[in-house]
Amino acid sequence: MSDLSARVSGTIRDVPDFPKPGILFKDITPVLANGALFGEVTSYFAARCRALGVTKVVGIESRGFIFGAPLAHELGVGLSLIRKPGKLPWDRVGVDYELEYGSDRVEMHVDGVSPDDKIVLVDDLLATGGTAAAAIKLIELGGGTVSEALFLIELDFLHGRSRLGDNVHSLVHF
Amino acid sequence: MSDLSARVSGTIRDVPDFPKPGILFKDITPVLANGALFGEVTSYFAARCRALGVTKVVGIESRGFIFGAPLAHELGVGLSLIRKPGKLPWDRVGVDYELEYGSDRVEMHVDGVSPDDKIVLVDDLLATGGTAAAAIKLIELGGGTVSEALFLIELDFLHGRSRLGDNVHSLVHF
Repeated sequence: MSDLSARVSGTIRDVPDFPKPGILFKDITPVLANGALFGEVTSYFAARCRALGVTKVVGIESRGFIFGAPLAHELGVGLSLIRKPGKLPWDRVGVDYELEYGSDRVEMHVDGVSPDDKIVLVDDLLATGGTAAAAIKLIELGGGTVSEALFLIELDFLHGRSRLGDNVHSLVHF
Repeated sequence: MSDLSARVSGTIRDVPDFPKPGILFKDITPVLANGALFGEVTSYFAARCRALGVTKVVGIESRGFIFGAPLAHELGVGLSLIRKPGKLPWDRVGVDYELEYGSDRVEMHVDGVSPDDKIVLVDDLLATGGTAAAAIKLIELGGGTVSEALFLIELDFLHGRSRLGDNVHSLVHF
């Protein structure tokens, strides 16, 4: 484990029984509160994106915005938003996906990506991968290509990575 | 109007009848999509914050995160989150506030701010000011002091500014 990964991992706060009994929630707010550490995370992500020639950042609502927006800023590229239904005001494309109980949907503006974009998809957490897989499908529907799906945290025991193809990277693994 | 203000204003997209008939929604996603312009907005906000000696950025869910996170990154300070009920996992303080019909609530972790913090509160839009006024109350409950409430857009005809005290600044006015 890299030094940065170890420090981020040690700063994340475990909150038992959130959002429901039996779930150990990984609270990232102590990472955000530490300006120097949060900045190192952004710089780490940016170095990967520069190596890939990324031209657009796509963040998934809402914690993906927290990591995606400073990443776009550091790279000097645009940010597009993937949001829950009913949040984006203009013409949209959407993808429905199955949850353990029921279903959900993600949406993006039709001008969110363009065919020549090299895209990094950003979220705080890779769990079962359902949302991220739908987000990748959405970007592809919009004509874009995902160079990498980038996460702060990956819960290895949920095997979400298996649903996302080969270009997946996470800073911290639990 | 400053040059930056005019360019941002000209980039914002008007979407009629969103989220309901009669509302002209100010869509900021074209600003985010323009990496150079989005970067200029962050640098503009950062210059104000440096002059005020800001030591912490507080963003309001969820578009406030989009402007607050890169601002914290450029300043090298921490970011705290104000969220809707049920989203923050750890020990919280909350403030209820009235809407035109019904009520709403904002929450922050108890360690979101500290008494020695000089805080900038960030959101994309100042409309009636209800959420921002509740957010300021929440920060004060947590022992913090708001040096400035900073918005990308202010809807002057709604007079939200009158509910927020003297330290309010918006880049674009409609």
